[in-house]
Amino acid sequence: MESFAQPLSSGAARPGGRTARTRERVLEAVTAILPEKGFDGLTVEAVAARSGVHRTTVYRRWRDTGGLLADAFDAAREMPWEPPDTGTLLGDLTEVNRQVVAALTERPSIAQALIAASFRSAVAATALREFWEDRFARAGVVVSRAAERGEIGTDAGAREVLVAACAPVFYELVLMRAPVTDDLAERYARAGAAVAAAGW
Amino acid sequence: MESFAQPLSSGAARPGGRTARTRERVLEAVTAILPEKGFDGLTVEAVAARSGVHRTTVYRRWRDTGGLLADAFDAAREMPWEPPDTGTLLGDLTEVNRQVVAALTERPSIAQALIAASFRSAVAATALREFWEDRFARAGVVVSRAAERGEIGTDAGAREVLVAACAPVFYELVLMRAPVTDDLAERYARAGAAVAAAGW
Repeated sequence: MESFAQPLSSGAARPGGRTARTRERVLEAVTAILPEKGFDGLTVEAVAARSGVHRTTVYRRWRDTGGLLADAFDAAREMPWEPPDTGTLLGDLTEVNRQVVAALTERPSIAQALIAASFRSAVAATALREFWEDRFARAGVVVSRAAERGEIGTDAGAREVLVAACAPVFYELVLMRAPVTDDLAERYARAGAAVAAAGW
Repeated sequence: MESFAQPLSSGAARPGGRTARTRERVLEAVTAILPEKGFDGLTVEAVAARSGVHRTTVYRRWRDTGGLLADAFDAAREMPWEPPDTGTLLGDLTEVNRQVVAALTERPSIAQALIAASFRSAVAATALREFWEDRFARAGVVVSRAAERGEIGTDAGAREVLVAACAPVFYELVLMRAPVTDDLAERYARAGAAVAAAGW
């Protein structure tokens, strides 16, 4: 699934030559191992065994667990993702939030596993941040389109609006481990819309 | 410092008898070890050595790392904390957010260390959630006071308003590891105020 918040799903790497296929197999192993075994289980040995790629190849190209995680985020960033275009800011923010909810609540959740890993590896933490900044930059168009439609003023900061909408969902589902409610995505999409309407 | 988001600072346990003093020494050791050595360093052995409390006592009463973390959160919840009362909702939410920023950016940050630990221990994750739910319940008065003053309508959900204000700060400082900016606390306090003004 293409998703705002989904760093990688299986078959993420693009088709290509032998090198691309090796990467695809390695990253599929990473995203399979991480939700199952956690950060401690994500070793070069385990990835080599699962992917069938020789361990010296994995060592040479990815070096260690941090390198594997960083490349998983890079691959996620390279995947196609288009911001929603529902016709209203609230609709777009709700759709973005639904993608966040879906990525954080699927079982197993690669997104949750990568977030947990970011507390164990500085390289993964940086890669996670770059992944989300890239998504915020690309999603900014939902705010500028709303301004062009005259739905909101032109002075709303796109990143602030998106963070106001998404952050409560991450907070509830990642830090609070709260149960999902039907209206979670829309409830906080309205927080983003309220921020946009307030015009800052 | 009393803080909305600060689970424990040194000297957190109340004075009392011998049992209370033992607890205080153990929890001081927990909050010293965790930011320094991380979850993996927080063993019963290490806490016994640092606190000077006999290891059989620590084992008997706290059992394991999870038990130590859960008691640290319980002790934090028992600490006095009064919600701000600045006279305006935006002022109160800004003050709450300033406390969140302070707790998450002090070095070392016990709050950050406890959040990281919550990804390693289900007991700690539950304790963290209970700690914050307790804080949200107590802080709800800033929203009801604003409604009594006629500053906002009476239909704003206190928890939603508080989450709209605080979650972006947690998101930026915990998940994005973003640098603190001067206006971070107030910027997202305004998100909470916008939600309250929108009246849901």
